[in-house]
Amino acid sequence: MSGLSHFDQDGKAHMVDVSDKPVTARIAVAEGFIRMTAETLALITEGRAEKGDVLGIARIAGIMGAKKTAALIPLCHPLPITKVALDLTADPALPGIRITATVKTGGQTGVEMEALTAVSTATLTVYDMVKAVQKDMEIGGIRVTLKDGGKSGRFEQP
Amino acid sequence: MSGLSHFDQDGKAHMVDVSDKPVTARIAVAEGFIRMTAETLALITEGRAEKGDVLGIARIAGIMGAKKTAALIPLCHPLPITKVALDLTADPALPGIRITATVKTGGQTGVEMEALTAVSTATLTVYDMVKAVQKDMEIGGIRVTLKDGGKSGRFEQP
Amino acid sequence: MSGLSHFDQDGKAHMVDVSDKPVTARIAVAEGFIRMTAETLALITEGRAEKGDVLGIARIAGIMGAKKTAALIPLCHPLPITKVALDLTADPALPGIRITATVKTGGQTGVEMEALTAVSTATLTVYDMVKAVQKDMEIGGIRVTLKDGGKSGRFEQP
Amino acid sequence: MSGLSHFDQDGKAHMVDVSDKPVTARIAVAEGFIRMTAETLALITEGRAEKGDVLGIARIAGIMGAKKTAALIPLCHPLPITKVALDLTADPALPGIRITATVKTGGQTGVEMEALTAVSTATLTVYDMVKAVQKDMEIGGIRVTLKDGGKSGRFEQP
Amino acid sequence: MSGLSHFDQDGKAHMVDVSDKPVTARIAVAEGFIRMTAETLALITEGRAEKGDVLGIARIAGIMGAKKTAALIPLCHPLPITKVALDLTADPALPGIRITATVKTGGQTGVEMEALTAVSTATLTVYDMVKAVQKDMEIGGIRVTLKDGGKSGRFEQP
Amino acid sequence: MSGLSHFDQDGKAHMVDVSDKPVTARIAVAEGFIRMTAETLALITEGRAEKGDVLGIARIAGIMGAKKTAALIPLCHPLPITKVALDLTADPALPGIRITATVKTGGQTGVEMEALTAVSTATLTVYDMVKAVQKDMEIGGIRVTLKDGGKSGRFEQP
Repeated sequence: MSGLSHFDQDGKAHMVDVSDKPVTARIAVAEGFIRMTAETLALITEGRAEKGDVLGIARIAGIMGAKKTAALIPLCHPLPITKVALDLTADPALPGIRITATVKTGGQTGVEMEALTAVSTATLTVYDMVKAVQKDMEIGGIRVTLKDGGKSGRFEQP
Repeated sequence: MSGLSHFDQDGKAHMVDVSDKPVTARIAVAEGFIRMTAETLALITEGRAEKGDVLGIARIAGIMGAKKTAALIPLCHPLPITKVALDLTADPALPGIRITATVKTGGQTGVEMEALTAVSTATLTVYDMVKAVQKDMEIGGIRVTLKDGGKSGRFEQP
Repeated sequence: MSGLSHFDQDGKAHMVDVSDKPVTARIAVAEGFIRMTAETLALITEGRAEKGDVLGIARIAGIMGAKKTAALIPLCHPLPITKVALDLTADPALPGIRITATVKTGGQTGVEMEALTAVSTATLTVYDMVKAVQKDMEIGGIRVTLKDGGKSGRFEQP
Repeated sequence: MSGLSHFDQDGKAHMVDVSDKPVTARIAVAEGFIRMTAETLALITEGRAEKGDVLGIARIAGIMGAKKTAALIPLCHPLPITKVALDLTADPALPGIRITATVKTGGQTGVEMEALTAVSTATLTVYDMVKAVQKDMEIGGIRVTLKDGGKSGRFEQP
Repeated sequence: MSGLSHFDQDGKAHMVDVSDKPVTARIAVAEGFIRMTAETLALITEGRAEKGDVLGIARIAGIMGAKKTAALIPLCHPLPITKVALDLTADPALPGIRITATVKTGGQTGVEMEALTAVSTATLTVYDMVKAVQKDMEIGGIRVTLKDGGKSGRFEQP
Repeated sequence: MSGLSHFDQDGKAHMVDVSDKPVTARIAVAEGFIRMTAETLALITEGRAEKGDVLGIARIAGIMGAKKTAALIPLCHPLPITKVALDLTADPALPGIRITATVKTGGQTGVEMEALTAVSTATLTVYDMVKAVQKDMEIGGIRVTLKDGGKSGRFEQP
């Protein structure tokens, strides 16, 4: 399966050998959103200011989710994550919540899966906390916007 | 925070008390997709037929992900899952992979978070295995299409 | 080792057989504290009102910790937890934070270990978030204040 | 929230960026106790000599708990632990068990949370194994007694 | 794939639907061994009596391993285990350690995987603790000797 | 307990201090088998070619199992695994499946436990998926065949 490095020449899945790759400083940024009605969004943003804190909890879930990446994604290497930060902002035009995750490591392979898992976990956590008032929310736009620090060079998309 | 049951009257997050809810048969179905180029999709579908098996591995990751839901989502109840099945199909019109997850339980609360987590984990796993050939794939359309069996009645969206 | 039910008649540790115990509604409450200087406490309580939220994060960590009890404590039975709630309050007289956790289940054995684990995890999380400003904080007073619902009857201490 | 490094300038929690900190040899020591009646303590110490081994099991739980620190404490960095040792001794004057945990790493941040988690898990495990004979035991005195190897220098308290 | 219930009619793996199976009392017993030299065995048995406790630690690892079964084996259902006990005995004729694990549940599917996982984890733990003195030990004879309580009736082999 | 490095001079178990060991490239290979009837083996090998994929799923389980080694084996150090590959082949002469796992790390201690855990998990996964048609399968022959890269030199057995 030429090009798919997670399979050997016989098509068998393996965790790719990165033993000989240098330890370099790496960063990845991913983003995504959860779309809801303006009424549901208002419940979250009001709550945030006054009482409960949906976004604060989703942020923590995203950080902890990043640390579980290698346990969730079968062929991911365990990596010594050195930073995780999530930004969650209400976007009235969506309407919904936009989430960005930034992950860093000093390791032998990239952290885009950690950033994507952080975003996914945070969006799922928002869904869980709000589903009592709206069930037809939709999660989307999950993608890598920046990856840098490895052999393959800088990848960036607007 | 009226309506958001994951917060008490003081706005503090808690795992909702479901002690007095009856144990009933429950089902949830969720779906989502990962969009890629036609060339990347061809690598997956050819590989599936001949050698490696991206979709088979993503299916297993989704099933195992469903079992990790209560560990990932802070306020989710641990539930005795009785069935998890994932359907992954190549959609040349997307182009990309469409994923549907069906989860059942006999429990005191619903399994839509388990179904959503299964779909999310499977899409992330596809991304991981294919990212060597395409980095700008996008995950989206993650939503609940069916939920049934609890007090709140049947929820369905096309 | 008469009286210690976690050991059989030969002194070998086992997970006690609860197969024949009835499924009953059970509750346990545990408490504990983390002591710090008045200055450190002020950082937490001010932060809570304005910006960061040490107590909100510790609450989430406590809830998630309760779900990890059977993985942490070797001879604990896995239990279908039906409720977890934590109360964290600043006590200027301590000075520090007092934490109470309430856990419920419908199961065959009690949830006092889940309540204690929730309190322990929450106190450790407070320590972690505040340790940059004070290292000699002390965690203590961790004990069960209520246990009810099983064969051994109601246990309560003030 | 000046001084609390786990929050950024806007008060949002994050896993602190340690990418640029050097990898140094680090050590932390923490301690704690569980207080019980002299009769309960006697059951443990007799058992240890003859048959069951409460302290041996609590030691193993503490070592395994140290390895779960990053999964339990939301903002903790995963660290390559290079040593964990626990000392559990019966103290008739308490009466109860005193526990000390020593953890080492070669990493970019300290291991005091690992040492504290080891002590906490060990005390909870003792509670679990002895609770059939005494429910009003109390866990306390959990604190860091030594931390060395990082930028902030040596911290020690008697 | 007729007969292999873990695959649907199209050959896709799934977690089998057990929703309609009754909750019954179930038991499974599994066994296995780790073979070593008589000299290595002597180190373990002497240690057990006097100082360290290889078998006691392997027993705890086996009990904790049983609780991790659903996380390790992709298509296993999570089950409310109600009992786990391991018996580890030195067999000078092997020479080595023989291990038997008994697991019970009140659930909708059997616990033979939990019993097998307990035995496997215990044998691996013995290997780990003794490997400094002998590397060519061998683990074998892992099989189910009793399974009872479900629809398929009693299975027993000597 | 002379020779057993997992115990200190008082016989207490600890996670051995490897702080001062150099980080070197390390490799370990382990093997094992699961024996079944020729009829059962035929179900697996036919299925593999046509529809389901028992061996592909067992391979993924083995890779993920390797990453859980430090959580399963009490005194194992967490290690940054840099490669995991499993080879599963049908052996009509056994009859059954033979499994080999290769694990690499750049760390301070060896990865033979990771390789053994990968093999064990893969054999258990095969058992799970085939147990509906045969219950008296046997797992055996689990041993290390190669270990290299550390202070103790190269170990190899045919």
